[in-house]
Amino acid sequence: LLLAFLPSGLTIPDPRQREALMQLEASMQTGGQTVLTDAELQLDTLLFKMKQEEMLRADFPPAMHFFKARHLIRTSPIFSLLQKMPKGGALHVHDFSMVDVEWLVKNATYRPHCYMCLTDNQSIRFIFSSRRPRPLSHCSPWNLLETVRAKMVNTTELDNSIMANLTLFTHQDPATVYPSQDVVWDRFEQIFLALWGLVTYAPVFRDYYYQGLTEIYTDNAMYLELRALLPEIYELDGSTHDTAWTLKTYQEVTRQFRADHPDFFGARIIFTVHRGVNISVMTDAVEEAMKLRRDFPEFLAGFDLVGREDKGRPLWYFRDALSLPVERGVTLPFFFHAGETDLEGTEVDQNLLDALLLNTSRIGHGFALLRHPVARDLSRKKGVAVEVCPISNQVLKLINDMRNHPAAALMSENHPVVISSDDPAIFGASGLSYDFYEAFVGFGGLRPHIAFLKEIAVNSIRYSSLAPKQQEEALALWQKKWDKFVSEITQ
Amino acid sequence: LLLAFLPSGLTIPDPRQREALMQLEASMQTGGQTVLTDAELQLDTLLFKMKQEEMLRADFPPAMHFFKARHLIRTSPIFSLLQKMPKGGALHVHDFSMVDVEWLVKNATYRPHCYMCLTDNQSIRFIFSSRRPRPLSHCSPWNLLETVRAKMVNTTELDNSIMANLTLFTHQDPATVYPSQDVVWDRFEQIFLALWGLVTYAPVFRDYYYQGLTEIYTDNAMYLELRALLPEIYELDGSTHDTAWTLKTYQEVTRQFRADHPDFFGARIIFTVHRGVNISVMTDAVEEAMKLRRDFPEFLAGFDLVGREDKGRPLWYFRDALSLPVERGVTLPFFFHAGETDLEGTEVDQNLLDALLLNTSRIGHGFALLRHPVARDLSRKKGVAVEVCPISNQVLKLINDMRNHPAAALMSENHPVVISSDDPAIFGASGLSYDFYEAFVGFGGLRPHIAFLKEIAVNSIRYSSLAPKQQEEALALWQKKWDKFVSEITQ
Ligand SMILES: [Zn+2]
Ligand SMILES: [Zn+2]
Repeated sequence: LLLAFLPSGLTIPDPRQREALMQLEASMQTGGQTVLTDAELQLDTLLFKMKQEEMLRADFPPAMHFFKARHLIRTSPIFSLLQKMPKGGALHVHDFSMVDVEWLVKNATYRPHCYMCLTDNQSIRFIFSSRRPRPLSHCSPWNLLETVRAKMVNTTELDNSIMANLTLFTHQDPATVYPSQDVVWDRFEQIFLALWGLVTYAPVFRDYYYQGLTEIYTDNAMYLELRALLPEIYELDGSTHDTAWTLKTYQEVTRQFRADHPDFFGARIIFTVHRGVNISVMTDAVEEAMKLRRDFPEFLAGFDLVGREDKGRPLWYFRDALSLPVERGVTLPFFFHAGETDLEGTEVDQNLLDALLLNTSRIGHGFALLRHPVARDLSRKKGVAVEVCPISNQVLKLINDMRNHPAAALMSENHPVVISSDDPAIFGASGLSYDFYEAFVGFGGLRPHIAFLKEIAVNSIRYSSLAPKQQEEALALWQKKWDKFVSEITQ
Repeated sequence: LLLAFLPSGLTIPDPRQREALMQLEASMQTGGQTVLTDAELQLDTLLFKMKQEEMLRADFPPAMHFFKARHLIRTSPIFSLLQKMPKGGALHVHDFSMVDVEWLVKNATYRPHCYMCLTDNQSIRFIFSSRRPRPLSHCSPWNLLETVRAKMVNTTELDNSIMANLTLFTHQDPATVYPSQDVVWDRFEQIFLALWGLVTYAPVFRDYYYQGLTEIYTDNAMYLELRALLPEIYELDGSTHDTAWTLKTYQEVTRQFRADHPDFFGARIIFTVHRGVNISVMTDAVEEAMKLRRDFPEFLAGFDLVGREDKGRPLWYFRDALSLPVERGVTLPFFFHAGETDLEGTEVDQNLLDALLLNTSRIGHGFALLRHPVARDLSRKKGVAVEVCPISNQVLKLINDMRNHPAAALMSENHPVVISSDDPAIFGASGLSYDFYEAFVGFGGLRPHIAFLKEIAVNSIRYSSLAPKQQEEALALWQKKWDKFVSEITQ
């Protein structure tokens, strides 16, 4: 196609040829082939004007750290439009970071029997217990929060300080607070440990997940694929439930939520295991995943490894364990995190190719994909979508300015991509809208338009783990919401 | 090719297939097809070890701002190896930033009749004059530096403050001093104005250019294509010389330098005009360029537009003027700056495509190329090399972390690329070695190896404006230097 445009010899540029090349490029990008209705075209014009104004702002939010940009984004007319927009599914979200930390503090920590201690390294831990819990090493004695708060005139300061321990978000300069990837990941992992005792308490666990679905639903997404560790959930007397119970509880709460919100399509779980474990633990986890998939075929979407790629073991290290399902002829789809790294040329950097060779269904992050042309081509040709989480990549210090995000290049060629939020609560975000904003405004400046937004919403269903028939249903539901959205905005 | 590797259905990954894909990817990158001699392979092993150690450093220089990284780079064994390496040609360097500012202050400003004034906006201006020069508006009264210095016990402070006014380099936090592209570009333009009166004084002009060649030669580059404004050069009595005189002087000094350094291959000039001018000035400039090309066919390589793309006029605005040579059947090669921008989707952002449609011989910067798949393909298929200037892009705030530089992706597919330094003195760099360091260590982590270095050196000759026969000569000279370098390092 392109070669036809190559001028032979020296010629004066032909404006029609120029126009044709510009249109060719426009047609190649995400949404470039989408045919728009009249109403959509009207909305497109509106959006273009909003974009032009946004790009004239002295502080251009996608060029700034999200912690500094958040209050600017919140006042952006584009953002409020994106909040209203039906965004389809959230395909890359983790179990421990679905819910705003304020809910956790105001709701979870105010329940009876909630104990807290302070660790040596300035983090906090929680446990709910009917009796005084046994002391935790490297932690202060346990304090019953009910008692602590009863002695206070005003608990605001305490609550704020708990909140600050459950999120990376800060009003200080993020470059100073988190000077390196090591520092921000350490803090990130401390937050997970702080959340653990709160969220794995059975009554909180159920409500937390229901609240998580509420936040996604309120943000006008209609479907979720949740990466979940499926930990043991405990009761007040210290008794615990097994993995299957946890998965079943997710399923029950999802059903309840759908019963309460009939226009919410549903949720599925991707069982995740930490990539720091040894081969025998990984083998057991894959066995467990196959069992869960057999017992919950409708609800368990597949399997993934979590934790910092740079410090964990590469996928290839676990190849035997990860080959078990194929060896046994059992279906266990993979949704591997891969390429969330700067360590170009190292063993970890092979994860992208190995994820594809292990037949991953999608790639989590794929930040390094642009520097791996073979993996990039395989991902494109096999239709393996990249789950792009812009704010996560920025907070975890892979990228500063969203305009340089590799997904901008991928989407200029309509590489299969979905946009998600990874750990929104820990990053001070919520739902999908903030990440949609960064992608829509940051990745291609004035270029992405309404068709871009439509395509990434449709992608979130097309590249979901849903079976074809379910995808059709989900698409029909989404289309109804979309048409309503377009007509309401343009009226 | 790739499709042959696509597994049909679900299979266990085959280690041989994996190995083949990894090798395929390695063979695609810059240098991936280069066959190495035994001595080169030995050097490669050495380099790989150096890289591994470099990547373990707590402060990884390519991830930092160059101003903070420079002292780390200077102590890096890789850097000292790159300094010794014969790097071929510097194809993107500007006339007013070839020479270390210390030389300017210690040499140029110490000459007799040098006047300086302080502008309202904290910059400085110079003029050499046999009589007291007329006052300059928005500037303090002129001070004869000879008189000023005579009154001082110690001139170090004065000299340092002059130096600070002639470079963007600072020991303070660059993010604080230059918070935005606007601020850094304003300062950049002030520096040009400060340099103007110093460098356009005929005696300094000659010596400055000779010194500029010396710095390039000392850094083991052997050829230069200098983008030059060819300004009027003045004498002490205020008389001035025309453009042809300036070009002729460049030619004479180049000949002198070659006579003094027979293993230096030479230099050519790319005549540049500021993109802020109007159409009639541009038309005159193109006419002038055609005349100069006719009169100096061996020495004038071509034509380009300079100045900040975001604020200047797009190439398409000047299409009639830029089409004149083709209309007249006159050869005037173009070397357009294009895509040195974040303003995706705007008129300025069309420069990349338009440069190609105007038959540019190379693209200056091409920073936005990755987001323009059509322009990218045209550049590749037409063999139009991108002149990548990593430090320039970082100092002028297009990129923070070199690992995310778009050239990393381009070079993973061996897109035609040369590495250059743009305005080394203004950025606190010198020659090519600092930019080679950023590219070699920053762009692909452990992946780029000796073949990468060899290929970018060869590219600098292959994509130069030299005629085929001259390229052969230059390559032969370079190869001799290269073999000597390899054998000396590995002995
Ligand atoms: Zn994740
Ligand atoms: Zn330049």
